[in-house]
Amino acid sequence: MKNSRNKRQKPQKFRAPEPAKLKRRPTLYGFHAAREAWLNPERVIEGLYLTAQSASGFEATLAEGRARKMRRPEPEIIEKHALDKALPHGAVHQGVALCAQPLPEGDLSDLTIAAQGRARTVLVMLDQVTDPHNLGAILRSACVFGLHGLIQQKKHAPELDAVVAKTACGAVEHVPVANVTNLSRALETLKEEGFLVIGLDERGETTIGEAVPRSYADSGKIVLVLGSEGEGIRRLVRENCDILARLPAPGPIQSLNVSNAAAVAFYAVCGAVKA
Amino acid sequence: MKNSRNKRQKPQKFRAPEPAKLKRRPTLYGFHAAREAWLNPERVIEGLYLTAQSASGFEATLAEGRARKMRRPEPEIIEKHALDKALPHGAVHQGVALCAQPLPEGDLSDLTIAAQGRARTVLVMLDQVTDPHNLGAILRSACVFGLHGLIQQKKHAPELDAVVAKTACGAVEHVPVANVTNLSRALETLKEEGFLVIGLDERGETTIGEAVPRSYADSGKIVLVLGSEGEGIRRLVRENCDILARLPAPGPIQSLNVSNAAAVAFYAVCGAVKA
Repeated sequence: MKNSRNKRQKPQKFRAPEPAKLKRRPTLYGFHAAREAWLNPERVIEGLYLTAQSASGFEATLAEGRARKMRRPEPEIIEKHALDKALPHGAVHQGVALCAQPLPEGDLSDLTIAAQGRARTVLVMLDQVTDPHNLGAILRSACVFGLHGLIQQKKHAPELDAVVAKTACGAVEHVPVANVTNLSRALETLKEEGFLVIGLDERGETTIGEAVPRSYADSGKIVLVLGSEGEGIRRLVRENCDILARLPAPGPIQSLNVSNAAAVAFYAVCGAVKA
Repeated sequence: MKNSRNKRQKPQKFRAPEPAKLKRRPTLYGFHAAREAWLNPERVIEGLYLTAQSASGFEATLAEGRARKMRRPEPEIIEKHALDKALPHGAVHQGVALCAQPLPEGDLSDLTIAAQGRARTVLVMLDQVTDPHNLGAILRSACVFGLHGLIQQKKHAPELDAVVAKTACGAVEHVPVANVTNLSRALETLKEEGFLVIGLDERGETTIGEAVPRSYADSGKIVLVLGSEGEGIRRLVRENCDILARLPAPGPIQSLNVSNAAAVAFYAVCGAVKA
């Protein structure tokens, strides 16, 4: 007894407790991104990490998954610093992270086949929008306004990774994304399928509000094309648009941020139609 | 001759050239932010740094300033790495930086007095939008859609610093910002001045498109109130709104990013009116 007490009193170097390492590296994080992925039957999920603090907030999601009889792993409660360490520096994880497999890659025919079963379809095509935060924000707005899919070029498109999913606040689970090799060829296919192609361009001959046909309130298929900030839509893609439309910009600055321009265009097309 | 050659052949430690330090610390950076500040007669500017590469791109702005007989300093050509060093890590300066004094702080009466001279006025009020990127993006959209001012609460508002100015792409020079102590009291003042107060709220009884009176196309004063993401407009401020309006959100996710929601609301109010 005496001996052991003596041992304890020996001055020792302070050593912070080693944070428990996560067994797998999380691939998604953030409350909304994780919640929507958890409830997406298309998502294969292999792990869920929650901090003690975030666990109660995620309880309703777990219950919803159980009620739907979804195949989901048991959550593991971990320390916040273990999550900090496993994720990129500064990731706003809100105490929630998932190990999920990527969504199956979609292609153009998935979008056109789905359109056949609907009275109205609106798609968005992005030409060289390479910033993952912009892609995430555009997916989020597309989801809010009820768009039916996003098309981008395989070569220049950001992956649907954790950053896109976090910025999209779960919208990656709802808006199907088709990666195509050639945007001009995709537009040709869409036109054959009866889509009207509206390109958003500062030099457009009409405004976006006027570009949407009145008949669209009843039925129709529209694809909105957006280019990158600065560059705009590239020539070959632009030449494949049926209409070039501009946003009304009466102020001293003409150009919106691309995700804001997208949100306005989605509203102009979808918001005009009473849901 | 032989001697000097020998000296040159002596092995010497390699020493990278010391980057020329800037005389003053720049307060604004980025092409658009700098251009609009340079041409804003309200801005006192004490220095302009350009890299050799960016100088030709800024030439038209310098010429425009000279043509307007503006009091502006001579630009200094500097190395890119000197600019990198003088600005926050990762700042996308595009080879342009300014030493400018802050804009004079505005107050509510500046906005209401200016409104008296116009047929139509639209203002935006932000309740607890604290992220500088969001503020910058909202200022940019406000400028594009021709809004006449932004109101925020002194206590919770980000400063109009380099980050806001960069994200706003020069809009801080065009959209007057009033910092007020109490938002509810500011709304009372605005209502006395004849403003209609429209609060953007998911639970709004009407959509934003329907909330704007038809008579507004001819004349009117509107202030749009936006709350922070998640929290929304706080109760006391909400109670001071004449109308609560929602954005149409037919999709599976309800909530837009605040800067996207602002852009859509600005379009719904200003874009509906033919310029």
